[in-house]
Amino acid sequence: MAKGETPNVNEDLGFGGRVVAESRKRFLNRDGSFNVERRGLSFFRSLNLYHLVLTVSWARFYLFFASAYFLVNLAFAFGYFLCGEGALEGSTARLPVERFEEGFFFSVQTLATIGYGRLSPHGHVVNILVAFEALFGLGGFALVTSLLFARFSRPEARLLFSEKAVVAPYRGITGLMFRIANARTSQLLQVEATVTLSRLQDVDGQHVRRFHELPLERRMVLFFPLHWVVVHPIDASSPLQGVDAEALARSDAEILVYLTAFDETFSQSVHARSSYKFHEVVMGARFADMFEKRDDGVPAIDLRRLSLIEPA
Amino acid sequence: MAKGETPNVNEDLGFGGRVVAESRKRFLNRDGSFNVERRGLSFFRSLNLYHLVLTVSWARFYLFFASAYFLVNLAFAFGYFLCGEGALEGSTARLPVERFEEGFFFSVQTLATIGYGRLSPHGHVVNILVAFEALFGLGGFALVTSLLFARFSRPEARLLFSEKAVVAPYRGITGLMFRIANARTSQLLQVEATVTLSRLQDVDGQHVRRFHELPLERRMVLFFPLHWVVVHPIDASSPLQGVDAEALARSDAEILVYLTAFDETFSQSVHARSSYKFHEVVMGARFADMFEKRDDGVPAIDLRRLSLIEPA
Amino acid sequence: MAKGETPNVNEDLGFGGRVVAESRKRFLNRDGSFNVERRGLSFFRSLNLYHLVLTVSWARFYLFFASAYFLVNLAFAFGYFLCGEGALEGSTARLPVERFEEGFFFSVQTLATIGYGRLSPHGHVVNILVAFEALFGLGGFALVTSLLFARFSRPEARLLFSEKAVVAPYRGITGLMFRIANARTSQLLQVEATVTLSRLQDVDGQHVRRFHELPLERRMVLFFPLHWVVVHPIDASSPLQGVDAEALARSDAEILVYLTAFDETFSQSVHARSSYKFHEVVMGARFADMFEKRDDGVPAIDLRRLSLIEPA
Amino acid sequence: MAKGETPNVNEDLGFGGRVVAESRKRFLNRDGSFNVERRGLSFFRSLNLYHLVLTVSWARFYLFFASAYFLVNLAFAFGYFLCGEGALEGSTARLPVERFEEGFFFSVQTLATIGYGRLSPHGHVVNILVAFEALFGLGGFALVTSLLFARFSRPEARLLFSEKAVVAPYRGITGLMFRIANARTSQLLQVEATVTLSRLQDVDGQHVRRFHELPLERRMVLFFPLHWVVVHPIDASSPLQGVDAEALARSDAEILVYLTAFDETFSQSVHARSSYKFHEVVMGARFADMFEKRDDGVPAIDLRRLSLIEPA
Repeated sequence: MAKGETPNVNEDLGFGGRVVAESRKRFLNRDGSFNVERRGLSFFRSLNLYHLVLTVSWARFYLFFASAYFLVNLAFAFGYFLCGEGALEGSTARLPVERFEEGFFFSVQTLATIGYGRLSPHGHVVNILVAFEALFGLGGFALVTSLLFARFSRPEARLLFSEKAVVAPYRGITGLMFRIANARTSQLLQVEATVTLSRLQDVDGQHVRRFHELPLERRMVLFFPLHWVVVHPIDASSPLQGVDAEALARSDAEILVYLTAFDETFSQSVHARSSYKFHEVVMGARFADMFEKRDDGVPAIDLRRLSLIEPA
Repeated sequence: MAKGETPNVNEDLGFGGRVVAESRKRFLNRDGSFNVERRGLSFFRSLNLYHLVLTVSWARFYLFFASAYFLVNLAFAFGYFLCGEGALEGSTARLPVERFEEGFFFSVQTLATIGYGRLSPHGHVVNILVAFEALFGLGGFALVTSLLFARFSRPEARLLFSEKAVVAPYRGITGLMFRIANARTSQLLQVEATVTLSRLQDVDGQHVRRFHELPLERRMVLFFPLHWVVVHPIDASSPLQGVDAEALARSDAEILVYLTAFDETFSQSVHARSSYKFHEVVMGARFADMFEKRDDGVPAIDLRRLSLIEPA
Repeated sequence: MAKGETPNVNEDLGFGGRVVAESRKRFLNRDGSFNVERRGLSFFRSLNLYHLVLTVSWARFYLFFASAYFLVNLAFAFGYFLCGEGALEGSTARLPVERFEEGFFFSVQTLATIGYGRLSPHGHVVNILVAFEALFGLGGFALVTSLLFARFSRPEARLLFSEKAVVAPYRGITGLMFRIANARTSQLLQVEATVTLSRLQDVDGQHVRRFHELPLERRMVLFFPLHWVVVHPIDASSPLQGVDAEALARSDAEILVYLTAFDETFSQSVHARSSYKFHEVVMGARFADMFEKRDDGVPAIDLRRLSLIEPA
Repeated sequence: MAKGETPNVNEDLGFGGRVVAESRKRFLNRDGSFNVERRGLSFFRSLNLYHLVLTVSWARFYLFFASAYFLVNLAFAFGYFLCGEGALEGSTARLPVERFEEGFFFSVQTLATIGYGRLSPHGHVVNILVAFEALFGLGGFALVTSLLFARFSRPEARLLFSEKAVVAPYRGITGLMFRIANARTSQLLQVEATVTLSRLQDVDGQHVRRFHELPLERRMVLFFPLHWVVVHPIDASSPLQGVDAEALARSDAEILVYLTAFDETFSQSVHARSSYKFHEVVMGARFADMFEKRDDGVPAIDLRRLSLIEPA
């Protein structure tokens, strides 16, 4: 291993450096998902139904439950059909298809606990079927209620990241900067950023991926009502000192961003991730002003200019 | 940029200083909301329905759901009406307006899954409509339950702030002080305060807004059963050293207050914010005693005196 | 003010020292509630219905909802009664008392959305009443569900504290000690203790109450499967150095205990408080062994011996 | 007590050392449960129904509620039976067994609030019984909904630990290492490890159990998409310096592992525990590579190789 390494360099973020070193794919996608694969977990072991139900789109969520409602009714309709003629008192259906249809609608009225009573169960078997369907209906409804709530109550930050990071003059030296803003109306507080540089380095003649945490001008902002320009000052101790665009590309650099905050609406911590690959870092540019003039003097920003950069 | 700045001065709380510097509006309102605007988020992107449903008043919340209940029944009533005469078995209505009315009440009995059965659906179309309304009713009810719970379970601190902050003698020097108390019967624990001075400064001949965190005599109180006088000692290192009322006003000073605590009832963290603009800071006054005599010796305070000040 | 005070002495825990100094009542009761009073909050402002519903006993909780169920049915029964004869189709009641009774049972069948249909609403007014009762029933039921869940999901530590604290030999010097254990089957992790001495001191000839945080041998235990003896070593820097039982009583001493932990079942932080008044501190005693012999060598403790002390 | 002990050695994790010292059982099982017993809590005091309902398997959970549903209906069926003939209008049953059966199915239709109405209550007593059953049904259903949600929303880490820990060459010296991975599809963030060595030591001629926190090469990883090799460097200050397999066994050593992380799906903290007893520590072995070649260069690991070791 390399001699003289400083202890605050995270060599491999905990996993062995070999294969990661070879990969030139981005480690973290722009949306915060990881570009890796874990094999060997059996399907049922890794399947996290709860995770799925929480993260699926609302359209799919509703579609899923409407389908379940339909299929359950279909199954019980078949059951009532099998109970034979006379199982449903008040039935006027005679043809099999009519009887099945009537069983379906009777099932709807039972599962949803409406029970108009024009049709009512008659006999042991059909009554037992009704008892099961009622239990099923109540349980299923309890399930939907709890899943709905789980979806509602899950805090999720929606942060906007500027498309590019820039290296711009900063207090006499230069700084690596990117801009973030909150895309929700709820307030985020105590927003903390951790920025890590991932790049290939030549160690003893080998290409090895190294992770360096980049110190920030300010790690935390208490209030986040507008936007925040996260700045890593490129001073003598920075691993980016003297690095130009070409060197960034050669070392396959990627800037990993990790944010935590307190979401006021949910009263819970929220997290967000993103990354800038070397080609998303613009040298010698700076972010354009986002502020807008308002007659009443209230500070206003235009979020559509979040990614706007201009030559430094 | 200014030379010789100390690193613990937050220059701009993360956003560019220019427009904020020009603004003389208060940054933080007394109720903790921010006096800023974020433009450019499209309506649907920024709309946070969940946030809205959580923070709307109870009266509006109930009104909204009662209206939804009415409108949904109206829509289905129209549907049943369109199914034509004979769709509702047991109907005695003949005139269109009577039939619509009967459809409405049938819809109520279906949506709420009562199903008396004097009226019952007859035919394919009306039965399918019933199946949909039942699904709608169950889903809508699941929604209301989960939203109700979300409203109930959302922890929210209700802190009382003294109307004014004062600058009063404190241990030989002076201190900036304000008083807070808990307006709820539940206990708050580990109450932590962060106080920031926001003011305009002349930097290289320009008016620039600067933020200074003010060190406190005590950042945290473990127990908060009565009240807490938050004190910033104005010693030689304080940015308020030698500042009088006139200078406060000239620099458009604002004291930003941020509080976090652990709410015992909810077992969750809660946050509160407020601010004192320069005209809400009284020089040479101190807070009056809030304690009251009780025969049994139990300490008692009168919260109506929270804002009472007297000449120092 | 007193000269030469060390900064880590909490003079008054944030509230003015005068009245608290006079009080000789205990500040914190054994069960963790505070022995103070906050006046002047108007009834409705301080009333925290949610807090009440969460902390009331299960018996009262159920009694409350059963009563509400009864009263709501009574009110609607009266409404149906007022709709006059013929409002309930299928009614066989003739006497007013019978009609009221029938209205009550009809209301039950409507509020609970059963709707047998032997009785069914007939006419505008009664149908509108039914629509309201259905809305009421669904809303009320949603309310009960969410409150039930809120009660269930509220984490609450149940810690056992030894009845007495002792001052016993400890590593060559002496230590103030008390013993705690978890009274629940769920695990507590990262249990942290903060111990504060509250006592009267003579400052410039006045009796003033002072709070001193007592340093602990160990502030935190990671695992808490058995019990924990919390120890404050009485070394030269301890405010309890050279203090005997008589001096403790004269200074009206009280040991305030504050505990936080992570509850594994709820995955949330929990808190607990208690206190030892001077007469609950035993000098020259130590805690008896709680361990029991088991044939298989598994460590076992007997929690009934938690408070057992023996002469040191 | 032993002289010259360093203060960062946790002597007994808070509980008296005697009996624990004698035990040679493992303190922490592989699955994270503790190998201890707390006696003397009365059954009802320690019974944590909520804890039970949360941690029982889904099969038992459903079985429990299906049984409750059956039993409640049975009880009310008996009640309706006792009300005598004629209590259920519309009944065609004559034999007692038929009447009981009809009462059971009527109870189902009432508890589930279906209310077909072929059978309807007739008379005071049976109507009161119906009112109670409706209250029972609504309350019970509210209960199931809230418990279901509590089960769903409870965050629980499922971490895979390598079967063995190894002592392998590490940066010129050696290190104690084990490997962990996330067995769920949801992301864990800010994963923190605390590793404690528990072993018997000879102190003043007595066998005493001591706990030493082992410093780690890295206490925390920000991202955890693949696996993490937790490393304790065995340098001169390590209590494992110069310890071989035989010495480990003689001192009855056990490596206690405690992990905390932030679960992204639940937005909550999760915890995990495990331990390596001395015979699960392999000297002179190292972990085999888990990475797999993928054509597109995306890093992939095979979790089935998590425990694979090879001679160092």
